[in-house]
Amino acid sequence: MKELKALSIEHSNGILKILDQKQLPNHEVWEQIQNPKEMVIAIKELKVRGAPLIGVAAALSLALYAEQGASESEFMRAAEQLRESRPTAVNLMYAIDKLTQFETVFNKYEVIAKAENIFYEDVALCERIAKNGEKFIEDDDNILTHCNTGGLAAAGIGTALGIIKAAFESGKKIHVYVDETRPLLQGGRLTTWELKKYGIPYTLICDNMAAALMAQGKIQKVLVGADRIATNGDFANKTGTYSLALAAKYHHIDFYCAAPVTTLDLKCSSGKSIPIEQRANEEVRGFQVSSGGVEWTPKNCDVYNPAFDVTPAGLVTAWIFDSNVVNQGEFNNYITKNF
Amino acid sequence: MKELKALSIEHSNGILKILDQKQLPNHEVWEQIQNPKEMVIAIKELKVRGAPLIGVAAALSLALYAEQGASESEFMRAAEQLRESRPTAVNLMYAIDKLTQFETVFNKYEVIAKAENIFYEDVALCERIAKNGEKFIEDDDNILTHCNTGGLAAAGIGTALGIIKAAFESGKKIHVYVDETRPLLQGGRLTTWELKKYGIPYTLICDNMAAALMAQGKIQKVLVGADRIATNGDFANKTGTYSLALAAKYHHIDFYCAAPVTTLDLKCSSGKSIPIEQRANEEVRGFQVSSGGVEWTPKNCDVYNPAFDVTPAGLVTAWIFDSNVVNQGEFNNYITKNF
Repeated sequence: MKELKALSIEHSNGILKILDQKQLPNHEVWEQIQNPKEMVIAIKELKVRGAPLIGVAAALSLALYAEQGASESEFMRAAEQLRESRPTAVNLMYAIDKLTQFETVFNKYEVIAKAENIFYEDVALCERIAKNGEKFIEDDDNILTHCNTGGLAAAGIGTALGIIKAAFESGKKIHVYVDETRPLLQGGRLTTWELKKYGIPYTLICDNMAAALMAQGKIQKVLVGADRIATNGDFANKTGTYSLALAAKYHHIDFYCAAPVTTLDLKCSSGKSIPIEQRANEEVRGFQVSSGGVEWTPKNCDVYNPAFDVTPAGLVTAWIFDSNVVNQGEFNNYITKNF
Repeated sequence: MKELKALSIEHSNGILKILDQKQLPNHEVWEQIQNPKEMVIAIKELKVRGAPLIGVAAALSLALYAEQGASESEFMRAAEQLRESRPTAVNLMYAIDKLTQFETVFNKYEVIAKAENIFYEDVALCERIAKNGEKFIEDDDNILTHCNTGGLAAAGIGTALGIIKAAFESGKKIHVYVDETRPLLQGGRLTTWELKKYGIPYTLICDNMAAALMAQGKIQKVLVGADRIATNGDFANKTGTYSLALAAKYHHIDFYCAAPVTTLDLKCSSGKSIPIEQRANEEVRGFQVSSGGVEWTPKNCDVYNPAFDVTPAGLVTAWIFDSNVVNQGEFNNYITKNF
């Protein structure tokens, strides 16, 4: 497999490494992933995260496995384990589907080429999303974003955060409000880390402060990513997205969903059929990192911890895809015409 | 001063002690407060918190100071320092006003009697709030609450959580969803601790999950407290309350504000004139307790950290006071008639 380098994953000379996102922002630790089993663990533990990146990471790990001589049955078993590592992100399913369907028979060269292609394609589609979305950002905009949808979440510059980066680099004067994104704090830990790295001005807030900022007129745009989009435009994204969409609607603030078109799941006709991953109670009971953590609730406190929620299409101003932008009200027509 | 005993403050034989709420739920540590200066620190550090309790605690601390022989000027200086310890809660101002206005001249016996009265009155008014609010709770209700408004926040059983406790004790089958309430996690640490103590079934969620629960039909009522209520019915409460009110409105869920009538600030004609306390960046950068903590953001990360937000009257189904219940649309009339 070729040399491949992104913000949080790289391959060189048969060695696949990931930046352990659990340890950011305070420790930048690269970890070698020796086989798909280790990648499954890294994905489940969120060392590797972000809908586009998960697909890329799974593909690279499978390609390396094939390159190292895995048999067809070993390869297919590993692919299935990777597919089940996170149930909501559809890009992962898409990558696995691509790598497990062969022109004729199981062929490691085909796997490698496809995995490299998934990587390059992600880089390119992030650029296209940024180009399509950047035009919505105006000078002096304060942009609210949720979770992490940047270079840490993709092989390329990301989705929602990629748009923000492109707008900043084009010279627009912007400020970013970052939702900390409980329970796993991808905003507080990762988006802040990226924005600081890029020199983009930002302010961190707790998730529950976003609506009050909107009421004060301090937010002009909301940009978020998506883990799965149904054919009616409903989409699943990190828990807390729905709440932001409601608040944006109430305050007449534009609310954009940015994602590769591969995030569309043609088998899901509405948000109701998107499976929502439930995660461990410990995540809400405190804050855990690889090196330890704290628990602040009573012992064995009962918890509800969905990783994602569903935002209905009616709350979305536009979906910014790599292929094009679909405005509110055009979604059904877009689907009928293109799929 | 008489013996006085509440869930998180007590006085006996000239010794005033508080339960350090920063260390709950894992450590139940009582700390002696020797003078008003120590009470100012305890309030600022949120060892003592909750709008009604702050007023009671300030009063008891001043009464003890007078009993111990403080001069009028020492007493008045301490009273002003206590008044400024937290700027948003109006009950504190109310208690200080009461204790610093004398029938004729400065008189320690008058101070002590008034402080005891503030304590007893709080116990009684919590009961009245519970009685007024309990009738809104129905069998099988799932009730969402924010922050901590229970026995830890008052001398009595509390406000919103007092209503919930009364409903449970009257035999109603209820379930409580507890917002963890970032950044200081009063829901995750304190409300959970109280509900567990009372045996009331509850589930802890992150603040950003509440709206999605509403969309699923899992919330029937929202009950919150208030730190200050303007004469048009707008009210300040813990950051995150506004977001819940918006979501409740969107989903046609009853949203109640429960507070003593002393939370009304007749000098504030709308939410716009309520001062909002801004707190330290460290609170959002991580989680801090007396015994240490963790920081998960990049060093010196820029933060916005208002302790409260303002919910406009239009989003409130009813205000549950100790004196009576005021329904949506009746607020202006209620103020005109009674004040």
